[in-house]
Amino acid sequence: MTQPHHPLANARLLTPLPDLLVDPVVRAALAEDLGRAGDITAAACVPAGVRMAARFAARHPGRIAGLDCARLAIAALDPTARFEVKIADGEDAPAGAVLAEVEADARALLSAERVALNLLGRLSGVATLTAAFAQAIEGTAARITCTRKTTPGLRALEKYAVRCGGGINHRYGLDDAILIKDNHIAACGGIGPALQRAKAAAGHLVKIEIEVDTLAQLDEALPFAPDVVMLDNFSLDDLRLAVIRAKRQVLLEASGGVTLETVRAIAETGVDVISSGALTHSAPVLDIGLDA
Amino acid sequence: MTQPHHPLANARLLTPLPDLLVDPVVRAALAEDLGRAGDITAAACVPAGVRMAARFAARHPGRIAGLDCARLAIAALDPTARFEVKIADGEDAPAGAVLAEVEADARALLSAERVALNLLGRLSGVATLTAAFAQAIEGTAARITCTRKTTPGLRALEKYAVRCGGGINHRYGLDDAILIKDNHIAACGGIGPALQRAKAAAGHLVKIEIEVDTLAQLDEALPFAPDVVMLDNFSLDDLRLAVIRAKRQVLLEASGGVTLETVRAIAETGVDVISSGALTHSAPVLDIGLDA
Amino acid sequence: MTQPHHPLANARLLTPLPDLLVDPVVRAALAEDLGRAGDITAAACVPAGVRMAARFAARHPGRIAGLDCARLAIAALDPTARFEVKIADGEDAPAGAVLAEVEADARALLSAERVALNLLGRLSGVATLTAAFAQAIEGTAARITCTRKTTPGLRALEKYAVRCGGGINHRYGLDDAILIKDNHIAACGGIGPALQRAKAAAGHLVKIEIEVDTLAQLDEALPFAPDVVMLDNFSLDDLRLAVIRAKRQVLLEASGGVTLETVRAIAETGVDVISSGALTHSAPVLDIGLDA
Amino acid sequence: MTQPHHPLANARLLTPLPDLLVDPVVRAALAEDLGRAGDITAAACVPAGVRMAARFAARHPGRIAGLDCARLAIAALDPTARFEVKIADGEDAPAGAVLAEVEADARALLSAERVALNLLGRLSGVATLTAAFAQAIEGTAARITCTRKTTPGLRALEKYAVRCGGGINHRYGLDDAILIKDNHIAACGGIGPALQRAKAAAGHLVKIEIEVDTLAQLDEALPFAPDVVMLDNFSLDDLRLAVIRAKRQVLLEASGGVTLETVRAIAETGVDVISSGALTHSAPVLDIGLDA
Amino acid sequence: MTQPHHPLANARLLTPLPDLLVDPVVRAALAEDLGRAGDITAAACVPAGVRMAARFAARHPGRIAGLDCARLAIAALDPTARFEVKIADGEDAPAGAVLAEVEADARALLSAERVALNLLGRLSGVATLTAAFAQAIEGTAARITCTRKTTPGLRALEKYAVRCGGGINHRYGLDDAILIKDNHIAACGGIGPALQRAKAAAGHLVKIEIEVDTLAQLDEALPFAPDVVMLDNFSLDDLRLAVIRAKRQVLLEASGGVTLETVRAIAETGVDVISSGALTHSAPVLDIGLDA
Amino acid sequence: MTQPHHPLANARLLTPLPDLLVDPVVRAALAEDLGRAGDITAAACVPAGVRMAARFAARHPGRIAGLDCARLAIAALDPTARFEVKIADGEDAPAGAVLAEVEADARALLSAERVALNLLGRLSGVATLTAAFAQAIEGTAARITCTRKTTPGLRALEKYAVRCGGGINHRYGLDDAILIKDNHIAACGGIGPALQRAKAAAGHLVKIEIEVDTLAQLDEALPFAPDVVMLDNFSLDDLRLAVIRAKRQVLLEASGGVTLETVRAIAETGVDVISSGALTHSAPVLDIGLDA
Repeated sequence: MTQPHHPLANARLLTPLPDLLVDPVVRAALAEDLGRAGDITAAACVPAGVRMAARFAARHPGRIAGLDCARLAIAALDPTARFEVKIADGEDAPAGAVLAEVEADARALLSAERVALNLLGRLSGVATLTAAFAQAIEGTAARITCTRKTTPGLRALEKYAVRCGGGINHRYGLDDAILIKDNHIAACGGIGPALQRAKAAAGHLVKIEIEVDTLAQLDEALPFAPDVVMLDNFSLDDLRLAVIRAKRQVLLEASGGVTLETVRAIAETGVDVISSGALTHSAPVLDIGLDA
Repeated sequence: MTQPHHPLANARLLTPLPDLLVDPVVRAALAEDLGRAGDITAAACVPAGVRMAARFAARHPGRIAGLDCARLAIAALDPTARFEVKIADGEDAPAGAVLAEVEADARALLSAERVALNLLGRLSGVATLTAAFAQAIEGTAARITCTRKTTPGLRALEKYAVRCGGGINHRYGLDDAILIKDNHIAACGGIGPALQRAKAAAGHLVKIEIEVDTLAQLDEALPFAPDVVMLDNFSLDDLRLAVIRAKRQVLLEASGGVTLETVRAIAETGVDVISSGALTHSAPVLDIGLDA
Repeated sequence: MTQPHHPLANARLLTPLPDLLVDPVVRAALAEDLGRAGDITAAACVPAGVRMAARFAARHPGRIAGLDCARLAIAALDPTARFEVKIADGEDAPAGAVLAEVEADARALLSAERVALNLLGRLSGVATLTAAFAQAIEGTAARITCTRKTTPGLRALEKYAVRCGGGINHRYGLDDAILIKDNHIAACGGIGPALQRAKAAAGHLVKIEIEVDTLAQLDEALPFAPDVVMLDNFSLDDLRLAVIRAKRQVLLEASGGVTLETVRAIAETGVDVISSGALTHSAPVLDIGLDA
Repeated sequence: MTQPHHPLANARLLTPLPDLLVDPVVRAALAEDLGRAGDITAAACVPAGVRMAARFAARHPGRIAGLDCARLAIAALDPTARFEVKIADGEDAPAGAVLAEVEADARALLSAERVALNLLGRLSGVATLTAAFAQAIEGTAARITCTRKTTPGLRALEKYAVRCGGGINHRYGLDDAILIKDNHIAACGGIGPALQRAKAAAGHLVKIEIEVDTLAQLDEALPFAPDVVMLDNFSLDDLRLAVIRAKRQVLLEASGGVTLETVRAIAETGVDVISSGALTHSAPVLDIGLDA
Repeated sequence: MTQPHHPLANARLLTPLPDLLVDPVVRAALAEDLGRAGDITAAACVPAGVRMAARFAARHPGRIAGLDCARLAIAALDPTARFEVKIADGEDAPAGAVLAEVEADARALLSAERVALNLLGRLSGVATLTAAFAQAIEGTAARITCTRKTTPGLRALEKYAVRCGGGINHRYGLDDAILIKDNHIAACGGIGPALQRAKAAAGHLVKIEIEVDTLAQLDEALPFAPDVVMLDNFSLDDLRLAVIRAKRQVLLEASGGVTLETVRAIAETGVDVISSGALTHSAPVLDIGLDA
Repeated sequence: MTQPHHPLANARLLTPLPDLLVDPVVRAALAEDLGRAGDITAAACVPAGVRMAARFAARHPGRIAGLDCARLAIAALDPTARFEVKIADGEDAPAGAVLAEVEADARALLSAERVALNLLGRLSGVATLTAAFAQAIEGTAARITCTRKTTPGLRALEKYAVRCGGGINHRYGLDDAILIKDNHIAACGGIGPALQRAKAAAGHLVKIEIEVDTLAQLDEALPFAPDVVMLDNFSLDDLRLAVIRAKRQVLLEASGGVTLETVRAIAETGVDVISSGALTHSAPVLDIGLDA
């Protein structure tokens, strides 16, 4: 079997979310904003039946993610609204660029505006930060990935935004992959028993990852052939040694101390994946506005 | 790396479901049965405040799964109920055996009885059929696994019942593993392109499986190193050849024509996993009753 | 009042379910299957915007039920999908027959396929088994009916499938009819007091049924004029005697030991209704596939 | 069969609702009142941890219904609250009477007060009006019953309140009994065909009622043996004639023009049931307060 | 700042509710009525595919509110239904007037009829009673307002109906305004401390109201500049004195003993707002029917 | 009326959220993380029934908010868990400080850990940033406030965190206050008409705010006596002039260009409130960990 080792470094493919998964989040956000009485300002100050045209525009440059949220928010209040995408999810927008043009009932559009912008700005912020990391490691074999440090309720959307930014996704939750950490190792009495228990319990389509803090722990883990080993807070030197020891038999994930300043050096050690919670928990919102 | 190849054949470990995931299913089932007016027979014919003791008993021998459902159904109507397990999930019950003893408000117990039995009987039925398959292939390296042909709304419970029966779980849904079938291959223009697209799109904790119908397709797939290859409706001879060609570099899953009569011969070809939709879509209910 | 006695044996009328009741079940099943990330295989391997035509076809002969589920599953992911029924719910399909033709977005269709087939196959299985029972008693005055031993979450759909099979429905839940069993009789201190309490509590549109195990119990019950008496596990001889004693003043329902082999003899005793939990808890899935 | 004809006029039995059905209504009402920020007055003005004792007291005399709602509303905000019933559901309270004593966290109690009173006052209002009707026809063989003209979302609670008032319940919804009205008759081409279709479609535990406007229509209906005939807006004379013609072979329900002034005369015609939408759609709230 | 004092007495503006807020209430009501089996009468007696035209007509004169509920109820069962409004929400209908014409699938229309009428009749009842109060005080500077004594689950709709009747809305819940009552005052140790705590806790967009029972309490409250003072059960003389003492520095709300007979005299004292729970908890249903 | 003008600058009062509002958010987050299969790592590697003690500790100094979320997350999986708060919401924690000690079932604690930390870290981040702003303007009469630029689904929690940080809350949604912006003014034909329409439509407990861009617009607005005027992107000089012109007759809110560097100078202009979306949309997570 001579195929090239690395399963992750090929072409980028943006896998979208179906409306069926996005719409409930959007509608919950609208319900949260409309409260019991609805938009009393629009009801008082905007005549019924007036139509309005507007543009979603980026105030700062960034990678776009979440236009479906904006479209669905407006459609929820005006099913006849028109929404035309100009710069799509996964694409870069320069400052001032129009992302989408919309034409809708004026009350509906004004009522949906904040929800649309809250989601679009947040997801584009995640995509923009991810894109910065992805760009920083371009040319290396490593990929940038997220964690479970996502906003409660928005995990699927934020994971999607990471993909829009050129990153790949870590596990989606506690149930779709095994990730053994120090407490689990302690509970099992060691790395070997923990991996054995995990393999006995896991189905054949579940990957097993183990987090290690030292090269010695890596050596302990390798004979049990986990799918992925997370090297937590390793020095660059230790990361390089880990790559040598693992001999491409397992995927190696570096975590800890990952910043835009450090990420390229980490990538150049030869690790396969670099994970950062900051992609989702600390990405600044991308400033996007709705211009009438 | 000298560790034994097979990741699945070790000790059986029964991973349970937290009440938090089971309780909503149970409460929805109670709501469906209680309707708008509640149990009008118990309300009319059973005085308030009477306590009642009873036993869940197997009318036929089988592998038990779902006692938590019974416990939670009764607790939903009487939080003070006592429920003592005698034969636990994952254990075998002979005909007539008492699975659990319960003491509760009589109205609550009679109202919860049917929901408790519907879930317990169904899940024990799945576990019992799985156990029969697991026993049939005992001593081989193969494991029995389920599919996505589960009862809508009960997937997590039925997957759990498969584990209680000694099987392992296939993917839980469309989102936690990639399984490439003929339509996907056709849409991509071939097995190679399909696997390349899948690898480019998948995160590093997602396994990739591809379904093939012939040895030639297997040969096409192997260079792209999928995690699992499903051999669909292969003859026993072709299964043996597939095992040889795959050289233990990928997991092999046999599917199609799997019955209690054929499963051992399939297992003896050396495949790793054998999947059957019948485990969940055709398991007869295990006859369990509640005896006052 | 000379009108013919039997209220049930007239023409068969298939009362459908409104989409409003079916759609939530279908969407919950889709949500269960799509999980958090959606169909990652279709997203990776099927280009956006491709249309696809396919046919739902029966692999085995059977009575069809549940085409609305298939239609709504596809429509939930592609509101523009076309779905044309060829063999309708309540009709018989020979092996290989096309039940419906569909044209839809390829990703949507492939993502909805398993949910559509899981529901269609299960409900058609219930209808097919019911039809076999109904055919076995054709020409007698008896009707076949289901029980509350249904799949949690699917009761309304399975009761509908029983109607598609030519059966009639027993009560839908604990709240729409009174059914007095042994525990209720014990709690009330006898059959007479139980029926008196039931009559005092029930509204004028609620029927009252009582389960009896012996002819002596039947004699006890008749003076209190229940609407229906369930004769549980009666011998054929006792069923005949019960029919004579009841003098067509109450409906008689036979239950227990009902199989395709025994049902005709039971029907020929003159009972009005024959109930079987197997219709819903043990019907094998009808094998239906989606052919591209 | 010599048992006394009338199935409804025996002892009154109050069938309660399980908490499982009441609690979701109460919690939805609390959520509606608490909004997003909760009770900002209590949070600002009542110190944390203070306990408070209070009494639910009737300001006017009436029949009580809905104390479970009050109890559950308080418990939802303070699970440690104590709630002691002094005058139970279905009992009469004089003006000023204490219905229940409560001791709870002060913030919780003040926050739950309005929801508790809104439900308790409304349901007691329904019970009180029903009791007035029931008292007006005491000594006759007739019973008072409600309709489907209930408050959306509160049907089960209001039907329960009718029982607390001494009434019986009409059907709970469109699905638990057949009620054929003029539009249905027109669609079927007559009373006979309508009843035949209904009988063919209905399960054996479903009652069939038909609404008629004239004695001639009654004559048309009787040969088809419906379970109940609703005599809509009949004169007292026609009601008496209807009772004679029906010969106690069907239940007769009088509807239309039913007031506290007219109801006794209607009852004395010999009809079995008298229905009034006013019980639920026009019952004035019973004035109940919470006294610290 | 010379702008006219009264902020409330200008032109009436009817602020509507978006469908997004109304539709869930309507669908919940339909689900409650359809139960598990749907409308079995329509299914049995009305052929599939038949269309039907009908008119919503007022049997008594009144102020209309809730036509959106009727429209959405029918649309939920037949998305192709046509619904044409003849007399809109907020307008007065004479007896016999047609409010709306509808054309829809006959089964859908008959199944939705009761839910449509229950909501339309109830909300029009609230609007009609409110309009009577509003008319009684016409020409004064006072406005009529509702309370939180609304039907659980229907608060937003009933508050809307109050606006249709020409009233204004009190706070929507416990969270959107502070209303300090006797228990809060007691907990804080007096009116002054209570208002100080409220001001310290409240955001700058939250109004603060305090309920007082005497002129002395009013004097205590005024120096702390609440936004509104509720004068509970004041005599007409005391109301007049309160107006003088408040010197238009706070809004004054009269409550207690408000009836159609007393309301004009109360208004003429010069108070700004008059509140009555009866608007929502005791409004008789407006009799509206659906005529085929 | 001699009471001091400023209604907002008094003592800080932290109004908490009831568990009833927090628990659904926590449970939804757990459901999102547990997926269909639950925590498969803990199930595989941690024996059932083991107890575990741990501490929530701040890795960096900050203002704490959200301990209820952590407590409820653990309680949802282990109702017997003990959770003892050491540093409460609204208090400052130095780096390394223990916020709470917990003792619980080990599986439950490890499964709930990430959800607990995601919420606690995010809310404490909001509180910490708010506290920095509040400290920067200490000694002035101004207060810091948030906007509607909150995380979809978490608005109530983030608004609470702002209060924990010493800020006050802006409106909670579109329904609890009127905020007139440029589009509304344009739709009404000017500031005067917009404010007139708003006053006509608003209830007496709803505040009205209008956003102005220039001193001229402020002059236009003042005669109509809005409750609050938002001065958007005013220079410091113009803010000072605005304060003079408004003569303390309305509250003034400064918005735009608010940073930790600029906020004190803005506050010293004499405005009442300073709003910043950054409090909720750009607060970095406070790093908090769970130490075994």
